[in-house]
Amino acid sequence: MSSSIGTIFRVTTFGESHGSGVGAVVDGCPSMLELSEGDIQPQLDRRRPGQSGISTPRDERDQVKILSGVECGVTLGTPIALFVANGDQRPGDYGDMSNIPRPSHADYTYRMRYGIKASSGGGRASARETVGRVAAGAVAEKWLRREYGVEVVAWVSSVGEIEMTESPVSQIGRALVDTTPIRCPQISVAEKMIKAVEDVRDRGDSLGGVVTCECRGLPAGIGEPVFGKIEALLAQAMMSIPAARGFEIGSGFSCAHMRGSEHNDLFEMRDGRLGTETNNSGGVQGGISNGETIVFRVAFKPPATIGLPQATVTYDGVPVTLESKGRHDPCVVPRAVPIIESMASIILADLALKKN
Amino acid sequence: MSSSIGTIFRVTTFGESHGSGVGAVVDGCPSMLELSEGDIQPQLDRRRPGQSGISTPRDERDQVKILSGVECGVTLGTPIALFVANGDQRPGDYGDMSNIPRPSHADYTYRMRYGIKASSGGGRASARETVGRVAAGAVAEKWLRREYGVEVVAWVSSVGEIEMTESPVSQIGRALVDTTPIRCPQISVAEKMIKAVEDVRDRGDSLGGVVTCECRGLPAGIGEPVFGKIEALLAQAMMSIPAARGFEIGSGFSCAHMRGSEHNDLFEMRDGRLGTETNNSGGVQGGISNGETIVFRVAFKPPATIGLPQATVTYDGVPVTLESKGRHDPCVVPRAVPIIESMASIILADLALKKN
Amino acid sequence: MSSSIGTIFRVTTFGESHGSGVGAVVDGCPSMLELSEGDIQPQLDRRRPGQSGISTPRDERDQVKILSGVECGVTLGTPIALFVANGDQRPGDYGDMSNIPRPSHADYTYRMRYGIKASSGGGRASARETVGRVAAGAVAEKWLRREYGVEVVAWVSSVGEIEMTESPVSQIGRALVDTTPIRCPQISVAEKMIKAVEDVRDRGDSLGGVVTCECRGLPAGIGEPVFGKIEALLAQAMMSIPAARGFEIGSGFSCAHMRGSEHNDLFEMRDGRLGTETNNSGGVQGGISNGETIVFRVAFKPPATIGLPQATVTYDGVPVTLESKGRHDPCVVPRAVPIIESMASIILADLALKKN
Amino acid sequence: MSSSIGTIFRVTTFGESHGSGVGAVVDGCPSMLELSEGDIQPQLDRRRPGQSGISTPRDERDQVKILSGVECGVTLGTPIALFVANGDQRPGDYGDMSNIPRPSHADYTYRMRYGIKASSGGGRASARETVGRVAAGAVAEKWLRREYGVEVVAWVSSVGEIEMTESPVSQIGRALVDTTPIRCPQISVAEKMIKAVEDVRDRGDSLGGVVTCECRGLPAGIGEPVFGKIEALLAQAMMSIPAARGFEIGSGFSCAHMRGSEHNDLFEMRDGRLGTETNNSGGVQGGISNGETIVFRVAFKPPATIGLPQATVTYDGVPVTLESKGRHDPCVVPRAVPIIESMASIILADLALKKN
Repeated sequence: MSSSIGTIFRVTTFGESHGSGVGAVVDGCPSMLELSEGDIQPQLDRRRPGQSGISTPRDERDQVKILSGVECGVTLGTPIALFVANGDQRPGDYGDMSNIPRPSHADYTYRMRYGIKASSGGGRASARETVGRVAAGAVAEKWLRREYGVEVVAWVSSVGEIEMTESPVSQIGRALVDTTPIRCPQISVAEKMIKAVEDVRDRGDSLGGVVTCECRGLPAGIGEPVFGKIEALLAQAMMSIPAARGFEIGSGFSCAHMRGSEHNDLFEMRDGRLGTETNNSGGVQGGISNGETIVFRVAFKPPATIGLPQATVTYDGVPVTLESKGRHDPCVVPRAVPIIESMASIILADLALKKN
Repeated sequence: MSSSIGTIFRVTTFGESHGSGVGAVVDGCPSMLELSEGDIQPQLDRRRPGQSGISTPRDERDQVKILSGVECGVTLGTPIALFVANGDQRPGDYGDMSNIPRPSHADYTYRMRYGIKASSGGGRASARETVGRVAAGAVAEKWLRREYGVEVVAWVSSVGEIEMTESPVSQIGRALVDTTPIRCPQISVAEKMIKAVEDVRDRGDSLGGVVTCECRGLPAGIGEPVFGKIEALLAQAMMSIPAARGFEIGSGFSCAHMRGSEHNDLFEMRDGRLGTETNNSGGVQGGISNGETIVFRVAFKPPATIGLPQATVTYDGVPVTLESKGRHDPCVVPRAVPIIESMASIILADLALKKN
Repeated sequence: MSSSIGTIFRVTTFGESHGSGVGAVVDGCPSMLELSEGDIQPQLDRRRPGQSGISTPRDERDQVKILSGVECGVTLGTPIALFVANGDQRPGDYGDMSNIPRPSHADYTYRMRYGIKASSGGGRASARETVGRVAAGAVAEKWLRREYGVEVVAWVSSVGEIEMTESPVSQIGRALVDTTPIRCPQISVAEKMIKAVEDVRDRGDSLGGVVTCECRGLPAGIGEPVFGKIEALLAQAMMSIPAARGFEIGSGFSCAHMRGSEHNDLFEMRDGRLGTETNNSGGVQGGISNGETIVFRVAFKPPATIGLPQATVTYDGVPVTLESKGRHDPCVVPRAVPIIESMASIILADLALKKN
Repeated sequence: MSSSIGTIFRVTTFGESHGSGVGAVVDGCPSMLELSEGDIQPQLDRRRPGQSGISTPRDERDQVKILSGVECGVTLGTPIALFVANGDQRPGDYGDMSNIPRPSHADYTYRMRYGIKASSGGGRASARETVGRVAAGAVAEKWLRREYGVEVVAWVSSVGEIEMTESPVSQIGRALVDTTPIRCPQISVAEKMIKAVEDVRDRGDSLGGVVTCECRGLPAGIGEPVFGKIEALLAQAMMSIPAARGFEIGSGFSCAHMRGSEHNDLFEMRDGRLGTETNNSGGVQGGISNGETIVFRVAFKPPATIGLPQATVTYDGVPVTLESKGRHDPCVVPRAVPIIESMASIILADLALKKN
């Protein structure tokens, strides 16, 4: 029962990495929203592996098909089923590992939970599961944009030791983000990141990173205390993304070092409404939007699949050296960008619809 | 509809800071669990303000009463209603601020969401709301302990710039945690933390901090991918606590700097079962427990209520200097310790009950 | 997790018949609704036993207390906790039956479900559980009335073999319903019903009956296909009331005998909107309100507690003659009237809030 | 958000009558269940129109495809997506009615709810929506059978004025039910029913009926009071089926005429466990199964689509005579049989999984 998220705008995803396909059902999208596959495909294309030399070379075409809920280009208010066929299935690639739980993968835990796991690839634990999220998120995003003019933009702010030092423009947009395959909008830094990823890739290793996301234009008054606070639901959504290890909003972990007198966001009058001079709150106070930009960051671990040999044990405890021959993604953060945008959109659409 | 959390073990909290009282209904606790108020009171006492000079001097007695669901000291499987009367209501203390939204408080956002807010104090946005969570969490914790021997222990690992440098013992227990009022088990560091809190308190300021939590003894195989992953639900639960700004599990944000070859947790045979040599995963792989200790951290901002004057504006945008005379807690992290333990217990009990 | 109903307007009830008390938490009631205990008490008084010689003589005072969610007579948008203390606990009355599962009671099934049941009385299976529903329903009803002018009125339409033959007025109101203790608004029939109940009571027996309910003034367009259809959720709500055995809407079971040409509700223009000439649909088409009055009926079995001796067996299968000395209600339908009104109000409020 | 039902075994359906197809996602089915399309197809074939001269001649092939959640013939514990393409789309058939809300159809109410409806056919209000339910129900049924040996069998017990008078055998099975296209297992009565349906069909009219369903073999102790009582959730599930107007369990509406002394089910020892001599309770006491057969009935109205002219009005209130030329089903009850079996299986599987 845990492949659904949201209450009013409710998304259910399905599909394993090596079955017929992956997808989602969006139940509760308002009617009368113009929607076509063309609204969804761009984000799927951004999520798709094989976009550059620094991501996995699998070419998943990922053409989305709307199976229901839309007629004559308009949503009906009924469930929108979205499907993407799995085109590139090569189960053999992972063949030798059936008796070896891959370190820091979900092989062992899935077996402990379900007594079985998809025989090849990551099954439901694969990053391919996020296809359904991205498709559903594109629907949420379209509605948010139409309804409030909300804009959701994420980018890579750090890879390994290399961090973005400043924002190149006042408001980063997706075009700028996509300038380089690493999706860091500060181009000089992006180049160093790409170099770092290429380095670990060439050594058969992988690298972690951080994605920053901004949600702009959400009006004040959205959020559902106490367990449906914006930051709580964003945290759930982000931490449910494969490889996510940390979430922070506004000042985040750095708030721990601060004093109240420097952290508090003083109010000011701006454009005829109350705004705050600073945004340490990340756009949220008491779990409810205050009209400022919502800013959060998500940390991703280095991908667990590496080419280097690993001294581990089989399910039976027999020591073994594991050497993976599968296709690897040395750094997931560039592809996490549209996933994060999508999950943020789903959460915000759901919360916005709860405020009636 | 957002004051409930959990699916099978479902907790609904209620109550404002200045009404009759606060509490929770625990729906779905298994029957035949021995339970009395004595199982709940200790954690409420740990949460209570006024325990020392470094927390707010309000003396809330917080005596819990079990209103239903228990008979002859045993749970019936029916909803357990828990109630704590509000003994110390002094609405006048906050009187002058009715036209001034307090910076980084929820006054403004509650008004935007609900068109109204509790006339005095924080209402539902007050830390007092957590009383219901702690009471419910004590029930969850008792069940987890009986069922699996799970032990949940949290402590303060940083306050302001002062960080715990090492664990004083192999397994930190609550008694050690409670040695000092700051609840940092490394006593030499604790003393520095207390000094730091006293310093900001004396200046009318406040300080942030970080709490670390360990959940030990949970068997492998618990967790509900993809949106009910352990880390996702823990993140929601923790980020729903007032003043929480960041959540991380296992290696957390530091994972972003790491390579896969150093981050991967290699398997080994230990005590007749598969264990991992390191625990960068924080006890969770693919959203499911792997039998290792679950470790996570939560960052808390410095409390928004400070004694220093703040240059802000009224709801109408008129500049004003706000000086608070209310009772302040200069640093919430010591009191956050039992709240975090409680929320973790609720999440884990719910997930454990989902694995049938 | 099953003591909650509703999604947006979410009601969680708690309490056993012989514990401290019973109550409910209403989470999701819109803010800014004027509400006091005086809005709730009248329906609790109508539900209360001991109102007349034909219901159980237990005098439960049932004074409701609002514990949270309301300040200065106005809802805050936060959870509204409602509590009614149990004043009249006489566990001894049911004492001898601990080893005998009472026929057609829930003693046996609760033991099979929970391994335990409340040691005396019906525990959570008692009609006393409905106190929380009625209190919560009064809140829902008040909101529906303010928001749409909705009026919900139920009455007893049959008791045993005696059936109401016609409506005495065009629109039955609660005052007329309450003219007699049996709550049948056709007074001549009511007198026969009272006589029938007195007859079975004097013989130590009990009698079943049917309650009819009308919800007037709900605008067209409310209802959530496919599983949240009005009739589906009303059916769940009504069949969850103790002793309910049947539910029907509009033409109900009699529709099975009809042809489409006589059953179809032809449209007509009325008061500037589309109405239907007949109302076989009971105000609902495709699960969504059509603006006509919603009409449904609920059948209740004769109460299982009777004074007559019953030849049954103990839990161990030993034949035994059971003679109950407890307090009995020979016919529950008059007291079911406010319970049905309350459950209908909860369902309709929740559905109305889902249409944003 | 209302196209999902169930909590642990959670079914989400999607699809309109004239889109690409219809289907369901089953989230929460236990892993390690042998499952193939061959387990699902038979019930879809029984639901399919065009099986005989007395149902609509549309030939919907309804071949189900499992898109996810199953590998090597075994469930993985992950969401099972089921899809049935719509093969026979003839939007033109309903063409002339775009400005006329069809009487007792959902055209008007969908427009009021969503501001739009599928341009042709019933869209989501069509009986075709039940394809997803039946596919999902077949999965639930298979699990219930494996886990408990549960058998769910439904049949037509009345059509118009013609009622089944007795059960031809002690336990009715599906083979017997399917002996005639009307699905009444008492063959002499079935013939009269068929004649009655042919009569109304030839006159361009339609007829209502009742389906009886038995669920055998469910152990005692399943059911989740108070709002998740078996009869409450069965009622919701059944009343959500298109054209359902009434639900009753056990003695049902006839209980209203009975005295407690005749209605109570006395216990007896049977096969080493407690059973009841009679089954007026329909296998459920206090919302929990007692180990007896669960028996309930569902009343269906005559289909709203008829060939006879109807004097109604357009959306604008202009009087008009509506004559339908579409394909009609003169009596839905035979095809409702597998739908009812499926919905019952979904509810019981979900409740069984809640008892951990």
